[in-house]
Amino acid sequence: MNPETEHENFLESVDFSKLNGLVPVVTQDAENSEVLMLAFADYEAVQATLETGYAHYHSRSRNNLWKKGATSGNLQKIIEIRVDCDDDTLLYRVRQSGPACHTGNRSCFYRSIFSSI
Amino acid sequence: MNPETEHENFLESVDFSKLNGLVPVVTQDAENSEVLMLAFADYEAVQATLETGYAHYHSRSRNNLWKKGATSGNLQKIIEIRVDCDDDTLLYRVRQSGPACHTGNRSCFYRSIFSSI
Repeated sequence: MNPETEHENFLESVDFSKLNGLVPVVTQDAENSEVLMLAFADYEAVQATLETGYAHYHSRSRNNLWKKGATSGNLQKIIEIRVDCDDDTLLYRVRQSGPACHTGNRSCFYRSIFSSI
Repeated sequence: MNPETEHENFLESVDFSKLNGLVPVVTQDAENSEVLMLAFADYEAVQATLETGYAHYHSRSRNNLWKKGATSGNLQKIIEIRVDCDDDTLLYRVRQSGPACHTGNRSCFYRSIFSSI
């Protein structure tokens, strides 16, 4: 199969039906496995991610395709994409340029609210 | 503040409005940082998680409170809970007993569909 057919086959297998055309995407640093952010993607965003090799999402607030870092320069180079057991969630493993969070923190999950340690 | 007040304050700060009363929860192995699963929680599920120290979710298919591992024994002991920058996603860092996935795989994200390595 050529890459385009592979991409199409994968896209058809993703279940976008549970959240009105969206799937959650967990984005993880491929080097140290830190969870960087959680965002949503539609068919178009996953397609753009596969075609360009850079993370794309669907902005719920702006209702459009969002290339992460297009404005800030904090791009996410895709190292690997994983899909979960029921095909309704994706995991982007990325090489993150700069911070992932708009606050300037490396990860959006910079606040701990409960710890048993 | 006593723990109950702290829990209530945290629960009031979580933004459940964007997904009709739910927030996505990323669950990560606290030891090796592997992403194990993605599920959803409502107020009740987060409250139960804080009170018991074990991961609870809201089952979208059964529309009820779901203690992970209640049937299978594959419990998730909470080590830490993190919240993201806009208060609408949680990260449970857990000690996972047995596999997290109903397929028997350690993680639900056992399939790689794209790799640039």
